[in-house]
Amino acid sequence: MAGPCSVESSDQMRLAAEAARTAGASVLRGGAFKPRTSPYSFQGLQEAGLKILQQAGREQNLLTISEVMQHDLVPLVASYVDILQIGARNMQNFPLLVEVGKSGHPMMLKRGPSATLDEFLLAAEYLMHHSNAKVLLCERGVQPLDRSYTRNTLDLNAAPVLKEISHLPVIVDPSHGVGVSRYVPAMAMASVAAGADGIMLEVHPNPREAMSDGAQSLTPAQLQVLMPQLRAVAAAIGRSL
Amino acid sequence: MAGPCSVESSDQMRLAAEAARTAGASVLRGGAFKPRTSPYSFQGLQEAGLKILQQAGREQNLLTISEVMQHDLVPLVASYVDILQIGARNMQNFPLLVEVGKSGHPMMLKRGPSATLDEFLLAAEYLMHHSNAKVLLCERGVQPLDRSYTRNTLDLNAAPVLKEISHLPVIVDPSHGVGVSRYVPAMAMASVAAGADGIMLEVHPNPREAMSDGAQSLTPAQLQVLMPQLRAVAAAIGRSL
Amino acid sequence: MAGPCSVESSDQMRLAAEAARTAGASVLRGGAFKPRTSPYSFQGLQEAGLKILQQAGREQNLLTISEVMQHDLVPLVASYVDILQIGARNMQNFPLLVEVGKSGHPMMLKRGPSATLDEFLLAAEYLMHHSNAKVLLCERGVQPLDRSYTRNTLDLNAAPVLKEISHLPVIVDPSHGVGVSRYVPAMAMASVAAGADGIMLEVHPNPREAMSDGAQSLTPAQLQVLMPQLRAVAAAIGRSL
Amino acid sequence: MAGPCSVESSDQMRLAAEAARTAGASVLRGGAFKPRTSPYSFQGLQEAGLKILQQAGREQNLLTISEVMQHDLVPLVASYVDILQIGARNMQNFPLLVEVGKSGHPMMLKRGPSATLDEFLLAAEYLMHHSNAKVLLCERGVQPLDRSYTRNTLDLNAAPVLKEISHLPVIVDPSHGVGVSRYVPAMAMASVAAGADGIMLEVHPNPREAMSDGAQSLTPAQLQVLMPQLRAVAAAIGRSL
Repeated sequence: MAGPCSVESSDQMRLAAEAARTAGASVLRGGAFKPRTSPYSFQGLQEAGLKILQQAGREQNLLTISEVMQHDLVPLVASYVDILQIGARNMQNFPLLVEVGKSGHPMMLKRGPSATLDEFLLAAEYLMHHSNAKVLLCERGVQPLDRSYTRNTLDLNAAPVLKEISHLPVIVDPSHGVGVSRYVPAMAMASVAAGADGIMLEVHPNPREAMSDGAQSLTPAQLQVLMPQLRAVAAAIGRSL
Repeated sequence: MAGPCSVESSDQMRLAAEAARTAGASVLRGGAFKPRTSPYSFQGLQEAGLKILQQAGREQNLLTISEVMQHDLVPLVASYVDILQIGARNMQNFPLLVEVGKSGHPMMLKRGPSATLDEFLLAAEYLMHHSNAKVLLCERGVQPLDRSYTRNTLDLNAAPVLKEISHLPVIVDPSHGVGVSRYVPAMAMASVAAGADGIMLEVHPNPREAMSDGAQSLTPAQLQVLMPQLRAVAAAIGRSL
Repeated sequence: MAGPCSVESSDQMRLAAEAARTAGASVLRGGAFKPRTSPYSFQGLQEAGLKILQQAGREQNLLTISEVMQHDLVPLVASYVDILQIGARNMQNFPLLVEVGKSGHPMMLKRGPSATLDEFLLAAEYLMHHSNAKVLLCERGVQPLDRSYTRNTLDLNAAPVLKEISHLPVIVDPSHGVGVSRYVPAMAMASVAAGADGIMLEVHPNPREAMSDGAQSLTPAQLQVLMPQLRAVAAAIGRSL
Repeated sequence: MAGPCSVESSDQMRLAAEAARTAGASVLRGGAFKPRTSPYSFQGLQEAGLKILQQAGREQNLLTISEVMQHDLVPLVASYVDILQIGARNMQNFPLLVEVGKSGHPMMLKRGPSATLDEFLLAAEYLMHHSNAKVLLCERGVQPLDRSYTRNTLDLNAAPVLKEISHLPVIVDPSHGVGVSRYVPAMAMASVAAGADGIMLEVHPNPREAMSDGAQSLTPAQLQVLMPQLRAVAAAIGRSL
């Protein structure tokens, strides 16, 4: 899975989708409804963003994933994207979990930054309570001991533990996990080596001009370099990406 | 502020409201929509619970507070209670914050278990973005270093810091903060001494039969003993409760 | 207990001891062997500092406490001070604990910044393994969730829990716990209200010129104001300081 | 680096050394002086253990590493082993760091469970203050968010960050980092993929009978399976073990 934090324009998404496709990704990400810590930050293009994401995905033959932040917008978001994402801040937004679960769409649930693994799996239980749809678990970093160098602490321990105690696929998002693009390749490779079933990477045609999370986004060229390395690590442990 | 975690019945709320009133509380709490970690736990009486809470509050001449968990239920909850509570798990549920903010009702925002104080105040900013209504900040414990003896770590440092960096009143909830009723009195007194503008206490007529959070609820008799002590501590630092 | 972080000079200690005595403290603190995070920071006056501390204590009829950092210096430090302190960084320095325990001196053990309460009590067990001397437990702040406003998170939950699960007296050190002098009075009052058996406060005649920890030190005048408030809080909960 | 937590007997060490050698390790670990949380736990064979370790290393042509816990035993430990280890609990035992630094021996410094990376590097600065000897940094897990499934949280973020901000080699110890042997292989592979310069693994001929840390020790057979996988991951990122 690859793509920018936020959908910003058709051009940006077309370039991001090309980069994702060329590098061999199968899912295009792009945020249209953005949960931002401050009300004064860019809040996303909303439905217009979903349309752009859908269009970019279709052109490159990629599945799409985007976050839904409120339960009554589940049908709207589900009408544009293939996989519904529940963000880390909403891991225990139970009305939202129930509605997403009822949608029948594949869903990806991000772990909250202070959630134990039991809390994480019980939140997934809300999703599965009303349907048999596929749920992906996503580790994206927990509250850090040390905020000086990374945004979060990517908790890769969670990968082998979740693989053992749950039957659900485990995705790792090293971009949010470390929050600094130059550390993302090492942690992406570590994620694959730890047994992740998939990786979500933030990729932006021009990270320095990104409206959100530019600091953690790879360029298309960096993604192009990274993907064969990820495949080599996967092959080394007897898996494929 | 005092009352049970969940509204369970008219009898329970009448006894809790009497206890709160007798002890000198001014606000009655009671959860009707309950955010529960597991979908298999009691989820609250919902609108029926709000009616019971309203009735109990009126009989004892107490203001009422209850949590609202989804943005489209803000008008419903606001039609029954005086103060709208946003729970810790929803501190960054931004669509909910916006709707609660628009309601014009007084609001109490609980700090998320891994939220920094800046993230907490930015969430409060979402509440104040659309109205001039009163916002109360509530510290209720952060992610614990040691889960062996307490449920969370009540972060009383937050009280003097928030009093300095914000103009909003600071409420402390030692019941959730420690999660064990026999430690609640000491921490309630510490909260007052640290400068809290108000205390929220869980009180249940019969904690052992409570449908949620019984382990951290005081009995009416314990509240009766505690309140004069809290007043004495308040007086010692030149304040009144 | 009151006094400066580091012993710097006879004049400094005389003023600090006068301030401690006037305010009603019974123990004078002062570091002579300093565990500093960086090798380039001031490392303490060592034996010369112990002599100054002893002299200042005698003149004001105060007991003295100072940290011992290495096991073979236990006899030296014990020859000058009344109470041996084991610092937070050395909570699990087991050879040191064994030697301090054998000294027969009263001892104060500071909790490590990531120590659980069980680890804390097992470290105290090392102290008590070889003697019957008195051990004081000292909470001084745990690793913070949020380093923006305070140096540590003073974990006052530890006070009622330790009082219940151990028979040892509990001292709280709000100066290290918050690390910012203007928040120290509120947290000192909270510590007393939470049931601490004693409070350790950093006091320096001139905090702005302190060679270590000036930012968290009270002035003698601030201590003078604080002590009657602490006594009032203690009285409010039926205790005396 | 491989070997048991504690040296227990000549037979145990001979088997462990054979396993390490066969698997291709270059350094044999074995604890003789053991820092144990409880005074009632096995404290190590001390000098007799060092002799056994030295002998086992010589027979298999392996370098040896063992922890030194007190500064006045540095010459003793240095007379038996090739690399001196400073344990996580002693990361800020400054008198010990100074003596180990003066020894001129290669040293491995383990990161404390709540140490920031700056505190870690400043502790290494104490080691390098008095000599030019080689210092290895070892990440071994930080204080966990969730103690239910792992003993610590192995912080692999530290690997790429330390590689960038320091010139020192980075070793990762997944055995202590997760504390559960069945999660060790995945995390060892993740450590290599994250860029670690070396891996330290606990290996015991019979983990179920180990006197310490059996739960996290691999068997020789498990090590035999793991090593080629680690080499494959290293090759995938263009390195060799």
